[in-house]
Amino acid sequence: MLFADIDLLDENLDFRSHCWVGVRDGRVAYVGDAAPAGEEAARYGEVYDGRGKLLCPAFYNAHAHAPMTLLRGYAENLPLQAWLNDMVFPFEAKITPEDCYWGTLLSCAEMARYGCVSFSDMYYHMEEGARAALDAGIKMNLSDSLLAFNGEGLDDLPVKGNLDRLIRDLQGAGDGRIVVDCNIHAEYTSNPRAVADLAAYAKEHGLRLQVHVSETRLEHEECKQRHDGLTPVRYFESLGVLDVPVTAAHCVWVDDGDIDVLAERGVFVAANPASNMKLGSGFAPVAKMLARGVNVCLGTDGMASNNNHDMMQDMHLLALTAKGSTNDPAVVTPKQALTAATRVGALSQGRDDCGYVAVGAKADLCVLDTSGPSWAPMTNPLVNVVYAGHGADVCLTMCDGVVVYREGEWPTLDIERAKAEVEARTKRIIGEL
Amino acid sequence: MLFADIDLLDENLDFRSHCWVGVRDGRVAYVGDAAPAGEEAARYGEVYDGRGKLLCPAFYNAHAHAPMTLLRGYAENLPLQAWLNDMVFPFEAKITPEDCYWGTLLSCAEMARYGCVSFSDMYYHMEEGARAALDAGIKMNLSDSLLAFNGEGLDDLPVKGNLDRLIRDLQGAGDGRIVVDCNIHAEYTSNPRAVADLAAYAKEHGLRLQVHVSETRLEHEECKQRHDGLTPVRYFESLGVLDVPVTAAHCVWVDDGDIDVLAERGVFVAANPASNMKLGSGFAPVAKMLARGVNVCLGTDGMASNNNHDMMQDMHLLALTAKGSTNDPAVVTPKQALTAATRVGALSQGRDDCGYVAVGAKADLCVLDTSGPSWAPMTNPLVNVVYAGHGADVCLTMCDGVVVYREGEWPTLDIERAKAEVEARTKRIIGEL
Repeated sequence: MLFADIDLLDENLDFRSHCWVGVRDGRVAYVGDAAPAGEEAARYGEVYDGRGKLLCPAFYNAHAHAPMTLLRGYAENLPLQAWLNDMVFPFEAKITPEDCYWGTLLSCAEMARYGCVSFSDMYYHMEEGARAALDAGIKMNLSDSLLAFNGEGLDDLPVKGNLDRLIRDLQGAGDGRIVVDCNIHAEYTSNPRAVADLAAYAKEHGLRLQVHVSETRLEHEECKQRHDGLTPVRYFESLGVLDVPVTAAHCVWVDDGDIDVLAERGVFVAANPASNMKLGSGFAPVAKMLARGVNVCLGTDGMASNNNHDMMQDMHLLALTAKGSTNDPAVVTPKQALTAATRVGALSQGRDDCGYVAVGAKADLCVLDTSGPSWAPMTNPLVNVVYAGHGADVCLTMCDGVVVYREGEWPTLDIERAKAEVEARTKRIIGEL
Repeated sequence: MLFADIDLLDENLDFRSHCWVGVRDGRVAYVGDAAPAGEEAARYGEVYDGRGKLLCPAFYNAHAHAPMTLLRGYAENLPLQAWLNDMVFPFEAKITPEDCYWGTLLSCAEMARYGCVSFSDMYYHMEEGARAALDAGIKMNLSDSLLAFNGEGLDDLPVKGNLDRLIRDLQGAGDGRIVVDCNIHAEYTSNPRAVADLAAYAKEHGLRLQVHVSETRLEHEECKQRHDGLTPVRYFESLGVLDVPVTAAHCVWVDDGDIDVLAERGVFVAANPASNMKLGSGFAPVAKMLARGVNVCLGTDGMASNNNHDMMQDMHLLALTAKGSTNDPAVVTPKQALTAATRVGALSQGRDDCGYVAVGAKADLCVLDTSGPSWAPMTNPLVNVVYAGHGADVCLTMCDGVVVYREGEWPTLDIERAKAEVEARTKRIIGEL
């Protein structure tokens, strides 16, 4: 595809108007202020009329539980423990592998609709999740959750066999779209032996690791009581977890010492502002983390606590909540917010050639229709993207050069079937409860 | 128009599927589970295919500065005083009446696009604002700002003549769509004599009154220093301001005693969660105010501090920020959030027959397209409206029975001209600075 006469946020997120951007073999192959010369233009295939449009890097969702789309609107307005124990866990016990496929497929459709091409996921039945991401044409860092409530080591747990199998069957599938990560659900759902074992396994196999960290005050404080004053960050560091590339989700209650560790160890912190507010968890110290040099990326979390996969909404919230919770309007610039939602997210998934628009990068792109009334005046396009625009302004999403969403159509999947399956499966599960 | 076979949030915001809703003479004239019988159906004109759609009350924006659309993206990421003094005030000094018209018209277009039919506005050149609202076909409670930095009484100030003229020329224009309110900009921009005079004027003329209250901590604390410990709420109460129906914008820093007064005096508090976060002002104690029985409504504020007029976004933020800032996920239910954005907003504008869908109410309606992937499953439609849906899902907005937005078209105005005028006028002003 050749995006013709289109406005662009380039690899520095600087605005350039009236550009030509050519995509070939899954990558950006041309960026210029004029059309490619002579016969070159024809080699990109379809010419896309870019007038009134803004080409941006696509979004990378650094923390999700995709099958939880089945639970959207099911467990609402409840304190966290009642939400989990009385509503979420009983529902989840009824979810079949096939349910996971359809829940994930609808999540993929929703992410693609709002310009997102890749997500890091923690759940169960991960083969089914991967199948959905492959079908939808988007990318996924999947991770099967380590849960070890007693003294088990990794060899005693099903996650070990799952990981071996996932690596064998799915690592690098879809031309690298599927990446297998390790996953520790959280400090309070595992024991030190299993955690250390999994960290060693990740190191041995060169895997990345996803983990929930300090989402709630209770989790943070109880960890300190259980482990001689160690916070979750220090606890995981002590067990070797931070020796591999880690994405730590939430980090709402981390202290200053934790932030130093997160910065020094290059941990990716996936902020989830919508979910953290909705569950009453609080506000992650995003401004402080960015100032300290922490790699802050962004996630939508599960649909029982957000309730949509609109990364532009969470990007907006990332900036707003940082300002609101610190009473400092100068913290978290639009560029920092957009970088978190794009480039840093891609890096958190080990996708080094993704998350920016330049020759050689993967063609993971989204096109924003800037003709709506919220976009005028265009005094500062980047500010408009972060504060004025909407995920619904995305009119085209491309992953590895393949269009996965375009103006109400999902070329890679049957959206009506996906919605109907999720609707029916949710009804079935609620009926079983 | 006859909305056929459409889902509905009724006057209690309860969900009803497959309804017929007829609109005639600007009001809802029929609500039923089946089509009106016989020849009756033909009397509503166009039959609207409501399948896959959800009919809701339209939104009422209880606090805005509509011409500030000209400043969108202009003054960003700055501390409040630098934002105001170095950027906003110099820009505003260059705004002409004609600029106000176009800025307001684009704001009206944006509000209509996101399902809003009415707004309370504080600014200057209000005739031009009213002309824009009348042209756009939506409703406006306009208010010319009282600014009195010295010892002036109302008779010494231009606002008195403006008010007399506005009442004479515009009160009730557009079949009641235009309402003239009084307006005190804030405690720190007026003196007690002028405030008391204006309160008396409002009482005498039966007018409502808009005022900024305790938006920032500085404003709140300095008021107490200036006025023997009186907070802005108590200061205004002491001068008779609360003897008329008041909409108090922001109320971020009100204390418990203030909240009691706001509840007892029936003050409408217009929360502006996006703006309050973006400017670093903080989080209004919305949960506490609702629990105490305060009439909480919702505003988008000006576009230099939001930066869009999407009431669904601010409604979402109203609920999220209340939970996040109190660490209590149970506060502010979806019904409370939607009520604030609709019925309470209408009441704050003195529009008693607006803000709900029932026979006899004004036909101020919005239709949400629920076919997008964020709406499945439809386990709880009201929850989906507040948490999963987007303003961009609005596919039709109706004000007093007249369609003001429908699927990318604004029947009442020239959207391309409005955007171009705002773009050009903003450029001119920035060039003059």
